[in-house]
Amino acid sequence: MINVGVLGATGAVGQRFVELLADHPWFHLQTLTASERSAGKPYEKVVNWRLETPFPDEIGDCIVSPTTVEAVADLDIVFSALPADIARSLEAEMADAGLIVCSNASSHRMDPTVPLLIAEINPDHTGLIDVQHDRGRDGCIVTNPNCSTIMLSCSLAPLLPHGIRDVKVATLQAISGAGFDGIPGMAICDNVIPYIGSEEEKMSEEPRKILGTFNGSEIEPITFPISASCNRVPVIDGHMLSVWVEAECGVEEAKKAFENWAAPFSGLPTQPDKTLHIFSQPDRPQTRLDRNLGDGMTVSIGRIREGIRYTAMGHNTIRGAAGSSVLNAELLKKKGYI
Amino acid sequence: MINVGVLGATGAVGQRFVELLADHPWFHLQTLTASERSAGKPYEKVVNWRLETPFPDEIGDCIVSPTTVEAVADLDIVFSALPADIARSLEAEMADAGLIVCSNASSHRMDPTVPLLIAEINPDHTGLIDVQHDRGRDGCIVTNPNCSTIMLSCSLAPLLPHGIRDVKVATLQAISGAGFDGIPGMAICDNVIPYIGSEEEKMSEEPRKILGTFNGSEIEPITFPISASCNRVPVIDGHMLSVWVEAECGVEEAKKAFENWAAPFSGLPTQPDKTLHIFSQPDRPQTRLDRNLGDGMTVSIGRIREGIRYTAMGHNTIRGAAGSSVLNAELLKKKGYI
Amino acid sequence: MINVGVLGATGAVGQRFVELLADHPWFHLQTLTASERSAGKPYEKVVNWRLETPFPDEIGDCIVSPTTVEAVADLDIVFSALPADIARSLEAEMADAGLIVCSNASSHRMDPTVPLLIAEINPDHTGLIDVQHDRGRDGCIVTNPNCSTIMLSCSLAPLLPHGIRDVKVATLQAISGAGFDGIPGMAICDNVIPYIGSEEEKMSEEPRKILGTFNGSEIEPITFPISASCNRVPVIDGHMLSVWVEAECGVEEAKKAFENWAAPFSGLPTQPDKTLHIFSQPDRPQTRLDRNLGDGMTVSIGRIREGIRYTAMGHNTIRGAAGSSVLNAELLKKKGYI
Amino acid sequence: MINVGVLGATGAVGQRFVELLADHPWFHLQTLTASERSAGKPYEKVVNWRLETPFPDEIGDCIVSPTTVEAVADLDIVFSALPADIARSLEAEMADAGLIVCSNASSHRMDPTVPLLIAEINPDHTGLIDVQHDRGRDGCIVTNPNCSTIMLSCSLAPLLPHGIRDVKVATLQAISGAGFDGIPGMAICDNVIPYIGSEEEKMSEEPRKILGTFNGSEIEPITFPISASCNRVPVIDGHMLSVWVEAECGVEEAKKAFENWAAPFSGLPTQPDKTLHIFSQPDRPQTRLDRNLGDGMTVSIGRIREGIRYTAMGHNTIRGAAGSSVLNAELLKKKGYI
Repeated sequence: MINVGVLGATGAVGQRFVELLADHPWFHLQTLTASERSAGKPYEKVVNWRLETPFPDEIGDCIVSPTTVEAVADLDIVFSALPADIARSLEAEMADAGLIVCSNASSHRMDPTVPLLIAEINPDHTGLIDVQHDRGRDGCIVTNPNCSTIMLSCSLAPLLPHGIRDVKVATLQAISGAGFDGIPGMAICDNVIPYIGSEEEKMSEEPRKILGTFNGSEIEPITFPISASCNRVPVIDGHMLSVWVEAECGVEEAKKAFENWAAPFSGLPTQPDKTLHIFSQPDRPQTRLDRNLGDGMTVSIGRIREGIRYTAMGHNTIRGAAGSSVLNAELLKKKGYI
Repeated sequence: MINVGVLGATGAVGQRFVELLADHPWFHLQTLTASERSAGKPYEKVVNWRLETPFPDEIGDCIVSPTTVEAVADLDIVFSALPADIARSLEAEMADAGLIVCSNASSHRMDPTVPLLIAEINPDHTGLIDVQHDRGRDGCIVTNPNCSTIMLSCSLAPLLPHGIRDVKVATLQAISGAGFDGIPGMAICDNVIPYIGSEEEKMSEEPRKILGTFNGSEIEPITFPISASCNRVPVIDGHMLSVWVEAECGVEEAKKAFENWAAPFSGLPTQPDKTLHIFSQPDRPQTRLDRNLGDGMTVSIGRIREGIRYTAMGHNTIRGAAGSSVLNAELLKKKGYI
Repeated sequence: MINVGVLGATGAVGQRFVELLADHPWFHLQTLTASERSAGKPYEKVVNWRLETPFPDEIGDCIVSPTTVEAVADLDIVFSALPADIARSLEAEMADAGLIVCSNASSHRMDPTVPLLIAEINPDHTGLIDVQHDRGRDGCIVTNPNCSTIMLSCSLAPLLPHGIRDVKVATLQAISGAGFDGIPGMAICDNVIPYIGSEEEKMSEEPRKILGTFNGSEIEPITFPISASCNRVPVIDGHMLSVWVEAECGVEEAKKAFENWAAPFSGLPTQPDKTLHIFSQPDRPQTRLDRNLGDGMTVSIGRIREGIRYTAMGHNTIRGAAGSSVLNAELLKKKGYI
Repeated sequence: MINVGVLGATGAVGQRFVELLADHPWFHLQTLTASERSAGKPYEKVVNWRLETPFPDEIGDCIVSPTTVEAVADLDIVFSALPADIARSLEAEMADAGLIVCSNASSHRMDPTVPLLIAEINPDHTGLIDVQHDRGRDGCIVTNPNCSTIMLSCSLAPLLPHGIRDVKVATLQAISGAGFDGIPGMAICDNVIPYIGSEEEKMSEEPRKILGTFNGSEIEPITFPISASCNRVPVIDGHMLSVWVEAECGVEEAKKAFENWAAPFSGLPTQPDKTLHIFSQPDRPQTRLDRNLGDGMTVSIGRIREGIRYTAMGHNTIRGAAGSSVLNAELLKKKGYI
């Protein structure tokens, strides 16, 4: 078993990490870190468990550690659910100290030596780990993209060989994306908020890197523009996207591209049977009904039609955060980095 | 006072008509029609009033009429909240019989002799009424557009002189748009449904006519394409739109165009102080907070930025239906058609 | 394997039956019935699957049967999710024809020869099956109570030996209790409806029978009064109850009674580890967080305090309907009735 | 005109005060106070207006004051929406300095010399103001009860002459009761929380004083017990109560008592036509449909039936807070205290 820890284990994404790792076939969840206030106490006493899945009792009496390099020094992998400002220096120190840091934080995503990884989409970007090693780092940082970006990038992958020229995307995003306490009930009940700070910028920038080409030393980004309009809607989990893609193919060719696309490998523990599920019903995917497909790891695509327009939807804290990060770690193991 | 009636007075849009007309300064609400089942009974006994504004007691003991030409023969105007299939022949008969029919139904919207009217946007399209008269009709039919189309068209008007080349729009629409019983609670709570039947087609077609030019005998439609993706979200009232407009102006010019645009007339009873309200805050308009601006008749615009992208939002059963229809009737009165 | 079928397999409770039976260790789901309109077609073509759990593909091409005695004649058990009016005669015919009918319908619940069964609470009431046999019926009808009644009865069981004198209960019930199309979104979003037809009567009457004593030939009902006020709230699944019990014990004794109560048997496939889960946190159980405890079969109890007041909560379509019915069938098997 | 101010003018209740006072016929809203951070800036720059009614522009450039005795020294009345901990000493200082303090805070509610006032229910309790004066205070403090307590007390008033012996009440309370940021969206969407801190205690204690008798020097409290179970439900505004009253009258007598009860005076500007509205329909009052009756000042009663059980509902931030406080001030004016 590979010893792993979760940094920031009490928050919304942290709890998802714990849920996914508590009973993992390859990873032994040994360390949970949180703020000073929580350190030294059993996890079950400090976490306010707010997932609908029952609390994993086996990890309940794990004594929470402070979020320091020392606390995780004997682990193989740490999964980071830290806020971006704390993550920046701390994740770098941990990677320098030899740890593999799989991070959901945004701090290092656009660092040219750090893979911005979606396991099934750009697995060869793990090559950047060697670049980090070459620069003298013992461990490495591997990041997963922003939640909405993951859904968008997964949905663009099949069309990439068909000459994408322009992308426009409007999002309808769940409130869990802002963390447990991020959005007051008074702010979102019976309401839509047409703004999510920094989200549109991330959706424009991150896919350039994700969908770009690793040339052995760096990523050559894709060049078509992506324009996003992000909205918060009153749903708990699941980000839905209305996408327009201008490409050099017709809609029938696009449909075939979606249906024929398959992940380049299979069999990792957290990998769903289908990374993409293509719906033919006119009114699917729907957020509540389809967010749990593939245990929350499948991105659902539907309504592919003239435009080219389509709808994409996925679970924002599983496929869009903790689940993708765990899958990235499984890919590293498969590739021999662990 | 001008004697008016409401066709289909018990439904979601019908109740809005009653609310707006119960105390109108020009119009006397004399007749309410509904299905055979309700005819002959007092309105307060057959309506299940579901608006948040209190029931207008003064109309409570009005005896409901069947929806027939005879029942409304002595009126000046009828406002139609009928389903499209029933509206088609019945509205034509009523117009032939000399009535002014202000209709929210979709049946006659694309008829080349029928104005598809938003009072402040294309008031000269009332000229088509003369075309109807010339063809031997004593009265006339005047329609208002689909709810989402009204928000979109109002928001496009200021940019029209700036060379619009392409429009893409994603909608986040309220459940009241489907009528009181249209969408089960189980279908929409904690959910997004990425499909509304016929809505995208209406949004592509109707604005061509609305924003077109009346040449004295017919409407010359605008020609730029409009591509829509329509989503239902769990809000009660208020349709929000994420819009992209490709035009021959920059974003600063567009902002000025929005701010400088004003309705071509003022002072009609149902007309809001501002047809468009331009927000500068980054997170406005919001559906629940802003849908009641101008008593539900103002279309809110915000987040005008590079793209050109912006957000538009308005109350779907007031500005988007009954309110726009009543305002259309007020315009006809002002123009001397009544 | 025991061959079973589901009557009314396309509705809200019917789908829960299919979900629970598709992969059952003892029961082979062989027959699905629905209305004439659906009969003859594969289940996956006629069902609009609306549960968050993925559709059970293995049952997808099962050809739907009409809801007749002939269609189920070769089965051992039928689970009934029929409407009460249809259930009355049809369930009786099936039982007469030798079938074991486990019904969620209300039609036969108060029939003095029919067990109103909650497996862990009144398992000896299965003795009424012999009464049915004695009266010449080859099969039998076994019913489970109304959804809210199940939560209430489970929660009263531990206090029964302590001299209950009076019960008052206010409910906060989920919309799934009214079926998929039962409550319009417009009726329930941002709203509470303080009325559910016939629910308060069921909650007053059914527990008298459930908690009564089987004397070998009939049930002697309990005699304390139960007064209920039922409210519909905007949650998808999970009924919450605020309960007052006047009993001959103090609150500390009541707490111990709850904590020490245990189901009289264990190990049935659908039985949860704990029929009752007692929370000590002041703000639990919560509907969304706790409705899935024990795979939806656990009734959660919390806030036991002076009054004696407490909160009870459970999943209304699993513990409160299909799940309890399946568990009842498992009890019959264990007791040798199958 | 009487010069008034609002203490804590930017919060949920503070905004309701501003809404109600911006255009008041007797009171001139002169001063708005907030935290140090906001002081010195125009109100429109520091308030995040979150009511559905449009922002009252006439008060927008009012410069916000710090919350000190000096800042309000020249006013006649201050309305307090302060947190309880801040309110305690500050309200006392202001009253000592000669101001009339109408407070929504809980700090002084149970002070034996402070009226806990619902204008139409216990108007003679204003006599306690003389007690305050006798003790050397130049001004006075007058409080309104907790939001749920107001609904309960209004509903109990008609039954008081009929020998109430016991009251049990379960509440279904709106999220606005916890302030704008009080309850995270993640905590309440698709959920019920069966706990509101200190609420049940307030509902047991405050009505004893409100419904008690003023004997010229103090309040003699009523003595029957009130037992409350408080639940938070996902609605924006409006608290609903399921009430049981054990009294010395039958249900028909109770119905008559409700129907015949009338406020002891009429004509105050904020007073609704009917303090109590009695519904006869089985499914009313409903929260969203009826919370705005009487501009939010009417308490709706329905489902009066055997038990004696009934449902009561009212707007928690208008009738249940700011509106009742403003009405109290109007009563003081009418009684000559101002």
